[in-house]
Amino acid sequence: MERVAIIGAAMTQFGQRGAWVRELLAEAGKACLDDAGVEGDDLDHLYVSNMASGEFEGMTGVPNALAHDLGAMPAYTQRIDQTSSSGGAGTYAAWQSVASGASDLTLLVGGEKMTHRTTAEATDVIASLTHPVEYKHGVTLPSFAGMTARHYLEQYDAPRETLGKVARKNHRNGVDNPHAQFRKEVDLGTILDSPVIADPLRLYDFCPITDGSAALLLCPESVAEEYTDDYSVVTGVAGATDTHVVHERDDPTTMGGVVESGEQAYEMAGVGPDDIDVAELHDMFTILEFLQMEGLGFADPGEAWEAVEEGETERDGDLPINTSGGLKSKGHPLGASGVAQVYEIHEQVIGDAGPRQVEADVGLACNVGGFGNCVTTTVLEGAR
Amino acid sequence: MERVAIIGAAMTQFGQRGAWVRELLAEAGKACLDDAGVEGDDLDHLYVSNMASGEFEGMTGVPNALAHDLGAMPAYTQRIDQTSSSGGAGTYAAWQSVASGASDLTLLVGGEKMTHRTTAEATDVIASLTHPVEYKHGVTLPSFAGMTARHYLEQYDAPRETLGKVARKNHRNGVDNPHAQFRKEVDLGTILDSPVIADPLRLYDFCPITDGSAALLLCPESVAEEYTDDYSVVTGVAGATDTHVVHERDDPTTMGGVVESGEQAYEMAGVGPDDIDVAELHDMFTILEFLQMEGLGFADPGEAWEAVEEGETERDGDLPINTSGGLKSKGHPLGASGVAQVYEIHEQVIGDAGPRQVEADVGLACNVGGFGNCVTTTVLEGAR
Repeated sequence: MERVAIIGAAMTQFGQRGAWVRELLAEAGKACLDDAGVEGDDLDHLYVSNMASGEFEGMTGVPNALAHDLGAMPAYTQRIDQTSSSGGAGTYAAWQSVASGASDLTLLVGGEKMTHRTTAEATDVIASLTHPVEYKHGVTLPSFAGMTARHYLEQYDAPRETLGKVARKNHRNGVDNPHAQFRKEVDLGTILDSPVIADPLRLYDFCPITDGSAALLLCPESVAEEYTDDYSVVTGVAGATDTHVVHERDDPTTMGGVVESGEQAYEMAGVGPDDIDVAELHDMFTILEFLQMEGLGFADPGEAWEAVEEGETERDGDLPINTSGGLKSKGHPLGASGVAQVYEIHEQVIGDAGPRQVEADVGLACNVGGFGNCVTTTVLEGAR
Repeated sequence: MERVAIIGAAMTQFGQRGAWVRELLAEAGKACLDDAGVEGDDLDHLYVSNMASGEFEGMTGVPNALAHDLGAMPAYTQRIDQTSSSGGAGTYAAWQSVASGASDLTLLVGGEKMTHRTTAEATDVIASLTHPVEYKHGVTLPSFAGMTARHYLEQYDAPRETLGKVARKNHRNGVDNPHAQFRKEVDLGTILDSPVIADPLRLYDFCPITDGSAALLLCPESVAEEYTDDYSVVTGVAGATDTHVVHERDDPTTMGGVVESGEQAYEMAGVGPDDIDVAELHDMFTILEFLQMEGLGFADPGEAWEAVEEGETERDGDLPINTSGGLKSKGHPLGASGVAQVYEIHEQVIGDAGPRQVEADVGLACNVGGFGNCVTTTVLEGAR
């Protein structure tokens, strides 16, 4: 199997943007091509990770619009949707396009434009990914998160404050990320006293609604040096589903898709959790950071919160998590998020993360679709 | 590069169905698994070709729903959208998943549920794939087709009747397809006198709005015989874009994406147009059958209509086209159509096409997204 390298990466400012998804995709796409010094018409494949441009904007066919905007014709285009993990799914798809020999140069651009819709409207579009029985009863992802958080805190005798420490850490990391939606520290008192959204989770336990885009350029590792010396290699990538009906899971604090995709990605990369130097986890809700830390083997079941208490996941800890600020402070434009996670890990393992830089040869990104309904995990190694 | 085989294929009844897309996908998916004698939990990857379940039904995340319905967990899932060529794009994606080594068994299911919406609503959803400038001015795909047909007929001095002969042929073929939406012959007078939709195109020049689903099961050729003796091999598959703004094309009667994807697929398969024994072309509008015949080298520019006049594309002609009845009589459930095209070619090259069977070792399917904005072409050979 041909190994696949990432030779370029870029992302837009995340936040409330006065631009449609098509413009955001073009902005990140152009920046990524520039990063690698290639032109649009050098591309064989152009993939777009996007969940819902039709529902949010009434526009479909955005990959073809992007091919136009990047001058990429006749590059083959397609859209990859795996709900909130569309970016991870796109990474996997772009990897497959190169690893299969179908493409020698694939640009993946993930993006979403959401802030022109109300939070209720956006939440409803996202909730349409749940099982119809859940959707009809008004269950949304935030309500699942609240129930899971309550369960976790009780099962493992963890204090509610520990969730707030995840939010505090990720907001602190976001201060050093110029692309983040929120670049301000938030103190624990503010977090813990913020309005209840889905008890025990409060406002600061949730990621925001965000516009933004991120891009990656992939090619066979064998030709990567023709483009740049600063590339990373996708040594592991995999995806897996858990039950589509959330209440059918044996243990609500275990996300089977995280466990399974993690095991497959580790096996492919020939590494284990102890080899990971930095990780981006899908902290759409603070509680998810615990579930992914445990599902990926970074902590034993019920012990992730203790690792957070002890500062192990801080930037100067044993395993820095969400150095980018995570979805929590960086923002969560659905189709962009998984791509932006890999962007951050790429920057870290090639040593280009600026003030966020940590010691990292091997990094991991975990992108959660729905409430763990489908999850992708990607392992990168720097080529240095 | 590992060659990829199709070891199972199935499709639902196309037409006006009292079932949501999720149910249609499950119906075709289960039938396809049964066709190959495998279970849902044998799958590594489960891909769904679908353009617009969110827009049509307010439901997203259908690949995860399908994983539930097929008992496929923890198989990895994703949705592939390339507008009206989502099925061809899904075929390419499923091929990549196996050829890359990521999956040893991938089920692709394409489907769409449309008939609960009015024709105007469905046409509007489809038109949202056009360039925003075109969309704002009210240009829809049928209007592009009308303008292109007028141009073609004038440029090549072809009679309007020749378009009607495409419709008559495809309706005649559909009579023998138990899955087709319309199973009745239509005489030329009825076709030519039907109401004008986009002059010179009339009602019978257009495919219908359709509900339906189709599925393919793919694995490495090296293990295909463990499942069945009746398999086909994907010897060529490729995709390419043309300009997203239709009026920017140098020649409105040439679809660049057809030409480019065809050339790439031929090269990969090591064949040329003369080697193709049977083809499924994307006759969303009758005029498109001419453009694809010429773009794929089955006829010289301006001469496809003469081949139709001479009966060469009839079931007993030199190159039978749309033995399934085509989109014209079989129907066009967007995400399903490209998969159903490959289904028909698969059935033909393994000799299982029943009353529609023609002499065929090598077949081709061409799936057109938008108005040729992105096109995929697939070449299959029978393993017999």
